[in-house]
Amino acid sequence: MTYCVALKLRDGLVLCSDSRTNAGVDHIASFRKLHAFEVPGERVIFLQSAGNLATTQSVINELQNSIKSDERHILMVSSMYEVAEMVGNLVRRIIKRDQGQNQGVDFGCNILLSGQVRGENPRLFHIYPQGNFIEAMEDTPYFQIGESKYGKPILDRVIRYDTPLNKALQCSLISMDSTLRSNLSVGLPLDTVVYCKDALCNPGLLRIDENHQDFINLRLAWAAGMNDLFNGLPQYF
Amino acid sequence: MTYCVALKLRDGLVLCSDSRTNAGVDHIASFRKLHAFEVPGERVIFLQSAGNLATTQSVINELQNSIKSDERHILMVSSMYEVAEMVGNLVRRIIKRDQGQNQGVDFGCNILLSGQVRGENPRLFHIYPQGNFIEAMEDTPYFQIGESKYGKPILDRVIRYDTPLNKALQCSLISMDSTLRSNLSVGLPLDTVVYCKDALCNPGLLRIDENHQDFINLRLAWAAGMNDLFNGLPQYF
Repeated sequence: MTYCVALKLRDGLVLCSDSRTNAGVDHIASFRKLHAFEVPGERVIFLQSAGNLATTQSVINELQNSIKSDERHILMVSSMYEVAEMVGNLVRRIIKRDQGQNQGVDFGCNILLSGQVRGENPRLFHIYPQGNFIEAMEDTPYFQIGESKYGKPILDRVIRYDTPLNKALQCSLISMDSTLRSNLSVGLPLDTVVYCKDALCNPGLLRIDENHQDFINLRLAWAAGMNDLFNGLPQYF
Repeated sequence: MTYCVALKLRDGLVLCSDSRTNAGVDHIASFRKLHAFEVPGERVIFLQSAGNLATTQSVINELQNSIKSDERHILMVSSMYEVAEMVGNLVRRIIKRDQGQNQGVDFGCNILLSGQVRGENPRLFHIYPQGNFIEAMEDTPYFQIGESKYGKPILDRVIRYDTPLNKALQCSLISMDSTLRSNLSVGLPLDTVVYCKDALCNPGLLRIDENHQDFINLRLAWAAGMNDLFNGLPQYF
C-alpha cells in the first residue's frame, strides 16, 4: 500500500508521500511516488500516486515521453484543469491497455495532481482510476490517497485553509507517523514538498528517512505530548 | 458501517460499540450491536457485531433460542474457548443458510466475543466471517471490528495491558470520537461496558448519546488539548 496526502492552503501546497510498495508481505520495495514537472517561472506540476505500480509508472513515463515529443503535453496547456484532463485520459488509456489479460488483478491507481500555472492560483486534484477527477476547495483543503484512514483524524482536527505551510507540513508528518505506527504496508522514507504560492518553480523534494533528526524529534514530541494529554485528562468516566 | 472496540486488560474488559447501521446513505438506522448473556456469579458473555445486520441478528436470536431449549448452549460450556467455538459454528451455519440466493450480497459478519467463565480469566476473541477466531493476548490487548482505522492510532499510542479500566474507557471513547468525526457511517449513540475481572455478572450497559455531558466534556477537552499540543510543538521543519 501507500499513503499520500496533499494540502492546498492559502499560502501554497504541502505534499507528503511514503515510498513503500508491496505485493504481499514478501515483496516489499521502495519506489518514489512523488514526481515533479516544471517550466521555471511559468509552471510547476506535482504528481503523487497510489495503486498499481505498473500503471502509475506507465503514467509517469508517458507524461515524460509526451513532453519530449511534438504532441500537446502538460507543459503547454493553459490551466491545471487541462493538465488534470490529460492525466485522467492517460490513466484511462493505460488501464484499458493492461486490462486485456485481466486475471483478477486490480490495475487501478489514484493520483493527486497539484501545482500552479502562471495566471492561476495553485490547484489540487484527485484523479480516480476511472480518469475523472475532483478539485480541492477551501472547505476541504486536502486530499489523501492510499492507506488514508489512520492519518485522517489529525488532519480533520487541525488543518484549516489558512494554516501556515510549515505547520501544515508538521501536521502531515504527524498524520504519516500515525499511519506508519498502525500499518506495516506504509513505510519510510517519506518524500515531502512545500510549495509557496506564486514561486512557479520546483522547490525541491525533502526526503525523510528513519535517521532524519527533525522527524525523530517531531515523532518523539508528538508521542510524549499525546500521552501527557491523555494522562492529564480529567477523569470524566 | 459500524465501529466496535474491545479491550482485555489486567483488570478486566472495556467494550465500546456504535449503533449506526446503513445500507447506502438513505437507509440509516440505529441498532444495538452489543449484547450480554449471563449467569450471575458464574459467567458473563458479551457479543459485539459488525457486518451484515441480518446475519448478526440471526446469530443473537439463535443463541437466545438455544438457551431456552435443551440443546448444549453457551451458558453451559466450561470455557470461553468453547463459547467462541459455538458462536463460530453458528456464524458459519447462518451464512451458509443465507448464501443460497446470493446476488452479490456480502452476508459476512465479524464478532467480538468477550467475557469470563468462573475458573478462567476474562478472555476476548475475534470471530471471523469464516467462523474461525483469534484470541487477544497481553501484547495485543485489544481488537477492533468495522470501521476501525480512524480510531486505531490513539489505541496504539496509549493502551497497555496494565492501563486502568477507567482510563481505557476514556481512550476507547476518544477512539470512537475520532471515528465519528472522520466517517459519516459511524454514529451515536454508543454502548459501553466496563467489566471488572471476577465480577462474574453483567455490570450493565452505559448508553452515550449526543447529550451525554461527560462525553461532551471529554470530546471538547480532547479536541482543545490536541490543538494546543499541535500549536505548541517546536517548529522542527
